[in-house]
Amino acid sequence: MKILEKGGVTAAKGFRANGIHCGIRKNKTKRDLALIVSDVPASAAAVYTTNLVKGAPLTVTKKHLENGRAQAIVCNSGNANTCNADGIEIAEKMAALTADALGLDASDVLVASTGVIGQRLSLEPIAAGMSALVAGLGDYSDEAAEGIMTTDTVKKDIAVEFTLGGKTCRMGGIAKGSGMIHPNMATMLVFITTDAAISPALLAKALSSDIKNTFNMVSVDGDTSTNDTVTLLANGMAGNAEITDEKSEDFAVFMQALNTVTVHLCRMIAGDGEGATKLLECLVSGALDEENAKAVAKSVICSSLFKAAMFGADANWGRVLCAIGYSGARVDVMKVGVAFESKAGKVEVCRDGAGIDFSEEIAKEVLSEKEINVLITLGDGNASATAWGCDLTYDYVKINGDYRT
Amino acid sequence: MKILEKGGVTAAKGFRANGIHCGIRKNKTKRDLALIVSDVPASAAAVYTTNLVKGAPLTVTKKHLENGRAQAIVCNSGNANTCNADGIEIAEKMAALTADALGLDASDVLVASTGVIGQRLSLEPIAAGMSALVAGLGDYSDEAAEGIMTTDTVKKDIAVEFTLGGKTCRMGGIAKGSGMIHPNMATMLVFITTDAAISPALLAKALSSDIKNTFNMVSVDGDTSTNDTVTLLANGMAGNAEITDEKSEDFAVFMQALNTVTVHLCRMIAGDGEGATKLLECLVSGALDEENAKAVAKSVICSSLFKAAMFGADANWGRVLCAIGYSGARVDVMKVGVAFESKAGKVEVCRDGAGIDFSEEIAKEVLSEKEINVLITLGDGNASATAWGCDLTYDYVKINGDYRT
Repeated sequence: MKILEKGGVTAAKGFRANGIHCGIRKNKTKRDLALIVSDVPASAAAVYTTNLVKGAPLTVTKKHLENGRAQAIVCNSGNANTCNADGIEIAEKMAALTADALGLDASDVLVASTGVIGQRLSLEPIAAGMSALVAGLGDYSDEAAEGIMTTDTVKKDIAVEFTLGGKTCRMGGIAKGSGMIHPNMATMLVFITTDAAISPALLAKALSSDIKNTFNMVSVDGDTSTNDTVTLLANGMAGNAEITDEKSEDFAVFMQALNTVTVHLCRMIAGDGEGATKLLECLVSGALDEENAKAVAKSVICSSLFKAAMFGADANWGRVLCAIGYSGARVDVMKVGVAFESKAGKVEVCRDGAGIDFSEEIAKEVLSEKEINVLITLGDGNASATAWGCDLTYDYVKINGDYRT
Repeated sequence: MKILEKGGVTAAKGFRANGIHCGIRKNKTKRDLALIVSDVPASAAAVYTTNLVKGAPLTVTKKHLENGRAQAIVCNSGNANTCNADGIEIAEKMAALTADALGLDASDVLVASTGVIGQRLSLEPIAAGMSALVAGLGDYSDEAAEGIMTTDTVKKDIAVEFTLGGKTCRMGGIAKGSGMIHPNMATMLVFITTDAAISPALLAKALSSDIKNTFNMVSVDGDTSTNDTVTLLANGMAGNAEITDEKSEDFAVFMQALNTVTVHLCRMIAGDGEGATKLLECLVSGALDEENAKAVAKSVICSSLFKAAMFGADANWGRVLCAIGYSGARVDVMKVGVAFESKAGKVEVCRDGAGIDFSEEIAKEVLSEKEINVLITLGDGNASATAWGCDLTYDYVKINGDYRT
């Protein structure tokens, strides 16, 4: 497994992409329409938000994915196309417009939208921009990554190279995150492409299995969004023998590549959470089982009080204990240990459920770094879990106090 | 039912209180030790946080309440006496010190603590201050209310007068809230006293039934605290016939008085949430059943995104829909309606799950008030629920970025 210098959705063979400003957003310097196209039909799988209020694009994408195949993804930012009376019609037309321009069947085009909820999405700028978007298709993953950003401050991508049956394969992805980020597949837009050959059924299995430990373990603000989707296209152009056996070595390698891509994007999404100054990684070990480990890790990463303390580089570990206590996990509080770690060092702050003496000075240094690990040991068993989040800052409030204007 | 001009725990006959600065807090202008005493033994009931991590005082209070009787409550602020190796011993000694000074049995003294978690609570200032605390007992509910405050900015109290069997009764309470406030009895310290006569069994029933619709419906930050307790003392000095029948008219009147006190304190706690500039009241109607109504109301009030939008007076109703969608409630999204209301007027923003035209100008006026009602109609049935919360502001982050210093 090699991480490539240039990441994104065009790293894999036979994928082109582009992103333009078409006019959905008022700011003309922000791209607002992205397109990803495979040269040939690809196996395709997606997972969606669990929110009952679902963006209209999800309904259309689900329908188009019924056969496990797709060839293009079109995505706009600036408007979520959600809670609009004619949303589904608009999303269908968006797919049809794209299909026409690419010479594809509309059912091979997947649709995504992100941005403000409850404002009608006008097709006009999308229709007007489509020919330029398609004409400009090429090795432009960066432009596509920019086109899907909302309040993100950095473009998020990665690509890896791996080998299946002697054939070099690549997989790469782009993501947008920032706000309305919370566990249970409700967390973001992620588009991943690979040239590996894999059956639609196993592709779906790989994705739904991977996200349980990756995208479902990310929280920025506890708000489960309405539009979020992770989509994975596999076009087979690497020439490997199609993966069809879940127990094969090839499937294991594929899963490993996928996990490398998704963990990287998770960390990028959490670290670039709205207003965030710090990436928080919570590692829980010694849990009774995985379910309890995950519940503890998520609860800590979601605590507003803990997140605010991390912003202030304040080793207020009592808030970690508090969040463990209300997580719903089965935990023996008297066995809990907590330590903070960063590249500045490590400081143990709690053992057997009670505080221990530690240097506030060293703790401040450890917590002043950009990436903080919160290490929790439960002493109840052997299961572990990791969750990713970010600090709660003035800028989160600022960004969300007046988002629509 | 009459709301008295002067509220608090000394409104009812036979209750005295006091609050002093004894030295737990560094700031000498802040009272940090409070005492409430009944002249005679009282029926007593309490409900506690559901957090697995429980403050040591709760363990001691629970034990002392086993017989359903108590005569005094001692409470310190500035230190939660939680996650300390010798916490229970300290809490027991705090009860014993108080009992000695009052000439009571230690088992008739209830103990509470609030403040930072995980720092050893020193008994020295408490022991040193006890004689002054007891000597000063009188009609000093305000001083007691101040003594239990942490990051609260206003003292919280109320008292009501009502009649049972021709006898005038009174009930009054004090509360502290502010941070680590979240549903499931994990929300605050509340002490309520009444001179009505009621059996311990019915008192416990009244309290546990009332909090389901009051204190369990308040959220400031989604963090379920470790120490929170609502305690109710009834000393019978009003001279009414003891309430022993759950189906009696007297019990209904008692419940009504209790509800008036608790709703008032809920609103005060939510409105004075850490950093809050606005009280948010979410009223859900037309739900399938009460459980679904409550889930929706709580979810909206807990959404960081919605709370930040309210801070910015931004009518971003999409975030209300989003929070309804991930609430876990059974809801037909296509029937949801949303309106915002305050003393500046009312503005409907969503009908049948989709946005409707509204004046952004009027919406801004409505949302610029200090008390905002969020009215949600579900169209699924006849159940309703109310939840209370507050906006998310820069000051919440400021207060919690460096709480311990």
